[in-house]
Amino acid sequence: MKRIKLIVAYEGTNYNGWQVQPNGITIEGVLNGCLTALCGEPVAVIGASRTDSGVHSLGNVAVFDTRCKIPPEKIAYALNQRLPQDIVIQDSREVPPDFHPRRCESRKTYEYKILNRRFPSPLARRDTYFCYRKINLEHMQQAAQYLVGEHDFKSFCSIHTQAETTIRTIYELTVAKEKDLITIHVCGNGFLYNMVRILAGTLVQVGIGEKKPEDMPFILAACDRAAAGPTAPAHGLTMVGIAFGKI
Amino acid sequence: MKRIKLIVAYEGTNYNGWQVQPNGITIEGVLNGCLTALCGEPVAVIGASRTDSGVHSLGNVAVFDTRCKIPPEKIAYALNQRLPQDIVIQDSREVPPDFHPRRCESRKTYEYKILNRRFPSPLARRDTYFCYRKINLEHMQQAAQYLVGEHDFKSFCSIHTQAETTIRTIYELTVAKEKDLITIHVCGNGFLYNMVRILAGTLVQVGIGEKKPEDMPFILAACDRAAAGPTAPAHGLTMVGIAFGKI
Repeated sequence: MKRIKLIVAYEGTNYNGWQVQPNGITIEGVLNGCLTALCGEPVAVIGASRTDSGVHSLGNVAVFDTRCKIPPEKIAYALNQRLPQDIVIQDSREVPPDFHPRRCESRKTYEYKILNRRFPSPLARRDTYFCYRKINLEHMQQAAQYLVGEHDFKSFCSIHTQAETTIRTIYELTVAKEKDLITIHVCGNGFLYNMVRILAGTLVQVGIGEKKPEDMPFILAACDRAAAGPTAPAHGLTMVGIAFGKI
Repeated sequence: MKRIKLIVAYEGTNYNGWQVQPNGITIEGVLNGCLTALCGEPVAVIGASRTDSGVHSLGNVAVFDTRCKIPPEKIAYALNQRLPQDIVIQDSREVPPDFHPRRCESRKTYEYKILNRRFPSPLARRDTYFCYRKINLEHMQQAAQYLVGEHDFKSFCSIHTQAETTIRTIYELTVAKEKDLITIHVCGNGFLYNMVRILAGTLVQVGIGEKKPEDMPFILAACDRAAAGPTAPAHGLTMVGIAFGKI
């Protein structure tokens, strides 16, 4: 029995998120089905980041156990033959049998992209959030700095969370603009339910002048979801990658 | 009667190209239908670049004549309400009644994008051509330089062309790489049928070592389609924009 780690890229548009659920097609469900067929035995993956419906990925991580004889590095190629075009394995390799992608220290990186121009772009519509309003980039950058570090992010968490603690550490949070594309880049040791989308929605409110950068410490201190901005739409969010402590 | 100029962006994936044809949905056909409904009179646009099936646009140009009372600048907003998500007007304004987008001097700019990495990216699959082979960027750049200027591009033209002359001028042809994305950027006074895709296919052949940069002068001189490389796939090509002499 080997444990195999996959790096999984996907366009989330046509999926009901990562996690298997009774209704609707999910990334996890499609992976399980294709791996079960490929390996000739029942396979169930364990995902690192259970992304929401509509969220994309360049580098989510999943592991599974198998007795199949395909060399671990070849599984990516064989699995991609069976997967639909909107899910593509980027790497496959063997890892220690006790490696669990949600039970070890990691740094997760997400990007939230905002297309800031007069009219939408048909070519960017699936993975950027369109905003025609004037956005003050410097204000967004100032606001972002208040959020870096270890904080109680309860204000930036869906009230539907089941997390034991709402304390998380953000290692890096930057806001950059190239032409008409604003990218929020965030790296942390973990993110609460909807946290990146609420961070993005709050930073956009700062950008359009509905909140001030200096409001951020008060929003954090409130520990109240109502203090932060709206949850930005899922399709602007992409899980970029995960770095694990030992793997 | 006013002549209105539109800047038209679209994702070409689901269209049989620009030009109205008996079978299949086209950009021109959808524009005509939506404009006819909006203006309350029969409308037929004249397009600047009749892009192939599957080719995208950030800035194609179309004009039409109308008696409707909507202020020219507002037509973009009103028309976007009726258009599908994969066609978005970027600008609308009145132009002189004799302005014809194919009968005046212009500089057209296209980009051909190649994703050069081990596995495809689900998020880039609709507007980049995926190539996993090792590509020598410098050789592509050297080859490109031979093509700049006024030449007979008969070798780089589909044999199905109806053009009177195959002489064209390329003002600029660059090949740049950022991370794993190679972009061929070309600006010229006009392009023959399939010309940009054949240029791209030939430059890729140089990149992967199947042709040499120094072969370019001989390929041009041959005036024979068979001398150049293959026609690169349509989905990697995007019409970027058009600058007119007087408008």
